[in-house]
Parts: sequence; structure tokens; C-alpha cells
Amino acid sequence: MNPRKHYFGSGPAALPQCVLEGMSEAILDYKGSGISLLSIPHRGPAFQAILDEAQELVLHLSGLSADEYAVLWMQGGGRHQFALLPMNFLKTSSAAGYIDSGHWAQAALKTAQHYGACQTLCSSSDNDYSSLPAWPPSLPEGLSYIHLTTNNTIYGTQMPELPLSPVPLFADMSSDIFSIKRAYSRCALFYAVAQKQLGAAGVTLVVARRTLLEQGNPSLPDVFSYAAQVRAGSVLNTPPVSAIYSCLLTLRWMQQQSMQTIEKQNREKAALVYAALDEQPLFHCPVAKDSRSLMNVVFKMNHAEQEQAFLNYCTSKNIEGIRGHRLLGGFRAALYNAVSLEDAAALANAIRQFNHKT
Amino acid sequence: MNPRKHYFGSGPAALPQCVLEGMSEAILDYKGSGISLLSIPHRGPAFQAILDEAQELVLHLSGLSADEYAVLWMQGGGRHQFALLPMNFLKTSSAAGYIDSGHWAQAALKTAQHYGACQTLCSSSDNDYSSLPAWPPSLPEGLSYIHLTTNNTIYGTQMPELPLSPVPLFADMSSDIFSIKRAYSRCALFYAVAQKQLGAAGVTLVVARRTLLEQGNPSLPDVFSYAAQVRAGSVLNTPPVSAIYSCLLTLRWMQQQSMQTIEKQNREKAALVYAALDEQPLFHCPVAKDSRSLMNVVFKMNHAEQEQAFLNYCTSKNIEGIRGHRLLGGFRAALYNAVSLEDAAALANAIRQFNHKT
Repeated sequence: MNPRKHYFGSGPAALPQCVLEGMSEAILDYKGSGISLLSIPHRGPAFQAILDEAQELVLHLSGLSADEYAVLWMQGGGRHQFALLPMNFLKTSSAAGYIDSGHWAQAALKTAQHYGACQTLCSSSDNDYSSLPAWPPSLPEGLSYIHLTTNNTIYGTQMPELPLSPVPLFADMSSDIFSIKRAYSRCALFYAVAQKQLGAAGVTLVVARRTLLEQGNPSLPDVFSYAAQVRAGSVLNTPPVSAIYSCLLTLRWMQQQSMQTIEKQNREKAALVYAALDEQPLFHCPVAKDSRSLMNVVFKMNHAEQEQAFLNYCTSKNIEGIRGHRLLGGFRAALYNAVSLEDAAALANAIRQFNHKT
Repeated sequence: MNPRKHYFGSGPAALPQCVLEGMSEAILDYKGSGISLLSIPHRGPAFQAILDEAQELVLHLSGLSADEYAVLWMQGGGRHQFALLPMNFLKTSSAAGYIDSGHWAQAALKTAQHYGACQTLCSSSDNDYSSLPAWPPSLPEGLSYIHLTTNNTIYGTQMPELPLSPVPLFADMSSDIFSIKRAYSRCALFYAVAQKQLGAAGVTLVVARRTLLEQGNPSLPDVFSYAAQVRAGSVLNTPPVSAIYSCLLTLRWMQQQSMQTIEKQNREKAALVYAALDEQPLFHCPVAKDSRSLMNVVFKMNHAEQEQAFLNYCTSKNIEGIRGHRLLGGFRAALYNAVSLEDAAALANAIRQFNHKT
């Protein structure tokens, strides 16, 4: 086996070593049962215990109660949520409001437009999404909901706090869930694909206020209805058992560290990398300082023709996964929870020490 | 680790040992790359190679060509397909025809009814689905498509051959894909959830005729459009990477054995278990002989109060996963490809040797 890389992929992303080891072992034999994790029945007690513990950890990490919020594990990724939200909650007599902070926020809006009226409430497209849009000073009357993206992986911006919204707030937290303390109770619904912060690709965590679910469209097929999925306890049909188990292992690891420690370490990691970028004259970070993401550091070289040499230099230092999104080029390094301080320091050192002349 | 069980769960089901070992290893380190299978990028060359090889094996095992058929890996399970089929292909001016062979066939019909007119073309509900319904002698004019379920896990019936249909035929093959040789080219589209024959829960294989895709509803959001998913090569958004890899490992194992050997062994396994059932006076199989499934053997005890004793006896013989579906009770044993002749013999012996008096 190669030495473990300093891996900064933006998703599927690095996972804690204990999660990989737990998954690897459970696939051969789930807890000494003689049956693989891939074969345990989804309606049996072993999987129910996984669901129960995962729900408890999600609620604990978000500071929410099971009385008020339901926890769901769904398939289909973010794009599936982009469709389900308006299908369930966009009323024909009203519009949905979208905060346009970049690529994924826009994709959510475009999908919702298939299902009804949508309004862009604010946008930072004018500055190429290099900062977060300002929350609108006033809102249109009677919105069904407001959708936002808390962290923008491609543009490297992050919303430090959730707004207080007068209408139900839906938040895509795919890339920064459980990375800093947040007032999750400001959301009527939040969701996160697993493959950034939580576990294996193939499952999406959805947390929804129970009173919201009661107001959803009652005429959808069960497979598209949040309320029906909650009634079925995430096992309307066979869920992605092993992907959910990988999330449980990651949630346990988070719980052991505490949200306070995780946030502190995330701030330290980001500070290391941004400091190196701000000091090194060959590089720059295009993101406004007050919008910079702790999770995805986006950066460029002043001379794009030096990028390949920097990538090669990183490879020689065992650093991988920093190539920028195919739409934007440059670099981006994901500093999700599972990326260690040591990983971040290795990247910061590479940025500082890179000499384009050698 | 416990000794490996004789496991007859109907899904998530047993997988070949080589698949479990391959998954376990790849999760720690994908092919010596120093990166976990759970972290490899879904748009990188390593995952593209997985998709390419899996597509080639699927087409080879089905005897189809890439020119004529597209291979897709989707999320959401069978219930998701139940909705996508009418959303994409049920024209407003026409109806869809459904063959009612039991629970899942009915669930497909009920979901489709949300999207347009549907007709039950034939049904075996009159005999509690203990046989397959006869193909209708004549079909209504102008159907958009006909949907059928080739193998009925709950009722233990299986369609030995695919019908020649004058309109596009859509087949749910979740529980018997690649278990016997079939004329797959009779289908315009067939699909199978992974967790029975193919791999880990969380991915669904869809194979669709390219000329069919061109006729699909063009106004759906991409996430619900087969055509858009094909255009995106199964990576419209992050797919369930590790679940797809588990399918690749199983497909390789099938390819090594050949479909001929797999079919021969499946016939032998089923013959062993049905023979034991037909001989043992304490048990009976409620399924008509010409409809009996090679994949799911459904059986009952003549005296239901002896069932728990038989389950206990099986546990003592290391046999698990034979409890019947929650809707029907009794027993069912899945004899999917990964269940060995030795497993089937162990179950047949348990049936023969069970003495309710001890």
C-alpha cells in the first residue's frame, strides 16, 4: 500500500482512517454476525440500530430534538433534492426564493423552475461569485420558502451564519455540515450529500421540521414525498445500507471529537492555508476575505502557465486532489473535517516553498 | 469471525466472497493508489475505467451492443424507476399496460397512475399470485409501453421467457437479472436494483435502447430524465461510486463463470430445494409448478405453529435469512447467483431432516 496521501479532493472526499477501517471490516463480517454489512437485511434489528444511532447523533450534533425534527437518509444526491423541494413545498399560488451564491445554488433554482414560480432574491454573479450575496433588505410577499447554499465548493465562499428567515428556510449544507457550530433550528429543512463530510457517495442526509412535512404536497408518489419517507422511517424501499453505515461511523468520530474541537481545528487549517496564499507572491485567492470558506480554499497562480509545475511539485510532496473545478480551473483544496491539521500544514508548506524556477 | 452462514436473504443478499474481499481491500486503498475507493473522484480516470468495464460486462452478459443499448447506473431503487418510467415514456394521448404478477408489479402500476392512464393487462391476483398471469390474447390499441416483473420475490414465481411485445417492453429484473439466459433484446428497457444479484444496495442498473431514449419526455429536469443521464454518462452528479464498484466485481465474477454455468447451477440449486419440499410431508410450496422461481423458493409448513421450531433448527445448521416476507409469512429462500450449491444442499437437507417432534 502507498503511504496515505494528503488528499484534498472536494467530493468524494477524504474520510477518517477509522471510518475506512470500520467499513473494510464490516464488509467482511458485520459485528461478528458471519454476514457482510452488504447483506444485512434493511428491515432487521441490526440495521434499525444503525438508523437509530445515526439519527441520535445527527440531532445531537445539530442541537435539535426528535420531537421537532425528522432525520431522513435518501438517494439521488443534491440534484434530487433540488427537484424534491419544489415538488413537495412550492405552492402553486406562490413563489420560491433562491439565494444565488454560485453554480450549485443556480442548479437548485433551475431545477425548481420546472415546478413553479421562482425568484432570485439576491446574487453575487456580478463579481463572479467571489463574495457572498448580501441578504435582501426586503422579501417579496408570500414566498413558499427560501433556498440557500451555505458553502460554495466551486467558488470557495461560505456563509458564516444562517439568516433568520420569515419563511421556511431550506439549506444545502452538503460541503460544510457539522464543520462549525450553527443555529440549525433556523432551517425548516437542511440537507447534505454524504460524500463531502459524512461518508460514502450514494446517500443524502435530510433533516426536516415535522410541522413543515405536514404541509407538503400530499399527492406525490411516496418515493418523492418527504412525509411518506419519514412515515416509512427511511426504509420505504431498500436504502443504501453501507453508505448509511459509513455516515454513522463518521458521525461517531465527530461526536467523540466534539463540535467545538472540530470547529477550532477547521479554523486553524483554513488559517494556515490562507496565510500561505496571502504571503506567497506567486499565488492569490480570488475570494473576498469576509466570504472565504473554511472548507474549500480556491486559489490561482498569477501566471496560469505555472500551474502544472505546482501540481507536479505537490505530487512529489504526496499532495493530491487540488485541481480546480472543471468549470473554473486553478486550484481548490477541500479542508473538510477529515482533512487533518497535518494535511493542511503540508499544503501550506508546499504553497510557501514552491519555487517556479526549479 | 463467525463461520460464514448459509445466507438466503432476499435482498440485501449474499454476495460472492471475492466481491466482499475486493470491496474490503479497495476501501482501505484503491488499487495501491493510497486513496480509498470511497474517495476516488467520480470524474477521474480510475472511476471512468470502472464505468467502462462495468458497461462492457453488462452488455456482454445481456448479448447486446453499445450501439443499440445504453447502460446507466442510477439511484433510488425500484420505486424510483416505477416513477421515472411513466414520467419519461407515458404519453398523454395513450395508456401504459401493466402485467400484474404481484406486490412489486402492483407497486409499479400504482406509482405510474400518478402520471397518466394505466391498464392492468392481466393479473393472477385471483389465485393469490401463486402462478404467473397468462399473457393477454390481445392488447389494447396504442399502448405507450408494457411493464412486467420477471421474477416475483414475494410469491416465488418467475417468467421463464420474455414475451415478444409489439410495444416497448419494460422489465423489472431486480431479482433474476443474469441468472438464466434470456432474450434481453426483447426489452426496450430493463432494470435491476443491485442488492439482489449485483452488489451493494444503493444503485440500480438500467439498460435502455437508444432509440427509446430519443422518444422520452424532453421537459423533465435532468435528474429524472434517462436521456439526460445517458448524455452525462451516469455522472450527471456524484454517483454511488462504491456500490457501482461492487457491481463491477460481481459482474467480473459472473463473466468468469459464464452465463451457461450460472444458469446450470441455478437450475440445480432450485431442483434440490423444490425436490426436498415436494417430498417432505411437513412442508409445501404454494406455487404452481410451471411458475416456480429458480431464484426465490417460497414455502410454508402445513402447520404454521411449527414454523418457529424449523427456524430454530435452521439456525442450528447455520442457515439464515429464510423468513418469509412480512406481508405473507412462511418462508422464502433466495437462491441468487451468489448462493452456492453447497448452501442450497444445506437448506434441502434441513428441510428433509427436520423432525417437528424433537
